[in-house]
Amino acid sequence: MARGVILFMARVFGEIDNVPVGSTFVNRRELYDARVHRELQAGICGGQDGAESIVVSGGYADDEDNGDEIIYTGQGGQDPNTRKQVKDQTLTKGNVGLARSKLEGYLVRVVRGAGGDEVFSPSKGLRYDGLYRVADFWHEPGIDGPRVWRFRLVIDKEASSPPEVNGFEDPGPVGRRSVTTQRPVRSLAVAQRVKRLHDYTCQICRTRITTPAGGYAEAAHIRGLGEPHNGTDVESNVLCLCPNHHVMLDTGAIYVDPDWTVWDTATGNVVGTLQRIARHRVDPQQLAYHKAHYAP
Amino acid sequence: MARGVILFMARVFGEIDNVPVGSTFVNRRELYDARVHRELQAGICGGQDGAESIVVSGGYADDEDNGDEIIYTGQGGQDPNTRKQVKDQTLTKGNVGLARSKLEGYLVRVVRGAGGDEVFSPSKGLRYDGLYRVADFWHEPGIDGPRVWRFRLVIDKEASSPPEVNGFEDPGPVGRRSVTTQRPVRSLAVAQRVKRLHDYTCQICRTRITTPAGGYAEAAHIRGLGEPHNGTDVESNVLCLCPNHHVMLDTGAIYVDPDWTVWDTATGNVVGTLQRIARHRVDPQQLAYHKAHYAP
Repeated sequence: MARGVILFMARVFGEIDNVPVGSTFVNRRELYDARVHRELQAGICGGQDGAESIVVSGGYADDEDNGDEIIYTGQGGQDPNTRKQVKDQTLTKGNVGLARSKLEGYLVRVVRGAGGDEVFSPSKGLRYDGLYRVADFWHEPGIDGPRVWRFRLVIDKEASSPPEVNGFEDPGPVGRRSVTTQRPVRSLAVAQRVKRLHDYTCQICRTRITTPAGGYAEAAHIRGLGEPHNGTDVESNVLCLCPNHHVMLDTGAIYVDPDWTVWDTATGNVVGTLQRIARHRVDPQQLAYHKAHYAP
Repeated sequence: MARGVILFMARVFGEIDNVPVGSTFVNRRELYDARVHRELQAGICGGQDGAESIVVSGGYADDEDNGDEIIYTGQGGQDPNTRKQVKDQTLTKGNVGLARSKLEGYLVRVVRGAGGDEVFSPSKGLRYDGLYRVADFWHEPGIDGPRVWRFRLVIDKEASSPPEVNGFEDPGPVGRRSVTTQRPVRSLAVAQRVKRLHDYTCQICRTRITTPAGGYAEAAHIRGLGEPHNGTDVESNVLCLCPNHHVMLDTGAIYVDPDWTVWDTATGNVVGTLQRIARHRVDPQQLAYHKAHYAP
């Protein structure tokens, strides 16, 4: 092209003006016209540049709605008649959109529709329930067999408060606040011990970040804590990594074989070998769990 | 040593059992005995392994207390009689403790004493006001001239809620909630544009992290947003960095000269040259500001 023009679909992330949390809509058309979810059928409005909104309405048997936290199943691979999963989902379209929203830190509008979880969903129509961040994404075999991509979304409470009425907080739709998510409390002692044992040196690339206040490294859980992974917060499930390799482990850019080989997911190349020391045993089973959710 | 024994002073981070937010103490001895602040004179209880608590009581002219956010001055260098700053402070003792608490993610107990900011301090004695995280540390010339280290502490609201009474929230000490900190809202558009212009490639080391959902990089503000730095959220004040170099920039492990040379603070070695592109102008004045607060 002599004169390059780059066209983006103008995505609208975050709140929509004049659409407070709790707003209700009769149907998908009304929701679309209000610009809250700009897809008439798809559950995810998103693409290569991020996802702006999802509708949770019970269309996927794998979805889990816990109110402040949602395990959401990606799109694609369903037989349109039976709605059964018949093909592997791929990290494309709305699925890659949700993954990019994690990488970019975008907040995703969540709409619940009748037909979803009975505690948290409206009895009819659709309701805008606020902004969630994408905390985590991975793949696994779905209930019907073929691979599904899954996304853990966690409410951003500051961005999702219902409007105040007369200075008092609106209690919100029935059920909305009745369940408190149990956030796993990470042990600082476990993290600190692993980092000290490795002297703040990355177990993958041997980088040691040295700040004016001493070494800096991160304690990365191999199998995630909390729902749905329910990893344990023990030293054998923790690696001492530099921030770069921590991001790469958490996003599935790398995985580690139980024989300690570190692989690059995208290229299929070997990155190196996990460095180990006698006083810090790494559990190969946790590595196998991580690999099962990220290897191609 | 034939038989190595490593001794740590057992630090107690976080909440103390049976000491709810809002607890008051007649004097430093009582505070010490309650294990809330285990120093009888020093304002910071901490060392190489982190800081567990501070007392804010107006002892340093440089302190700024905004309630949910505190700009706290490090210890040392004061003339004991005049309390004026006569020598440069160093990043040692309690000061390095606060810096390490940032690096490790430890929460710091904050105690306010009579004599501090009149809106937020008790009229007599001392009061435990909850857990704060260390968001930022840097040095600068103090009001009296010599260098001081400064720490920005931000309340952790989840960890610092006063206990509930009969299901209603205790409004807390007078003035405690009367000021809302204005958190700067970062523009995702600015961050996204800078990262795209560099194709998610670090401007310092040329690393490009590639995840299954595409490139990952971070938009790092050179001069921090919000109080007290008040940097601007524009592209010329943002670098596209890998997570490692983002941490290093934010902790002063590296700084960049206005001639684009990247320096390692600890070793004094040149790390490289900042990579620039025509469509992303970096403002040398922002680099000079950062350097002034982190260069040795």
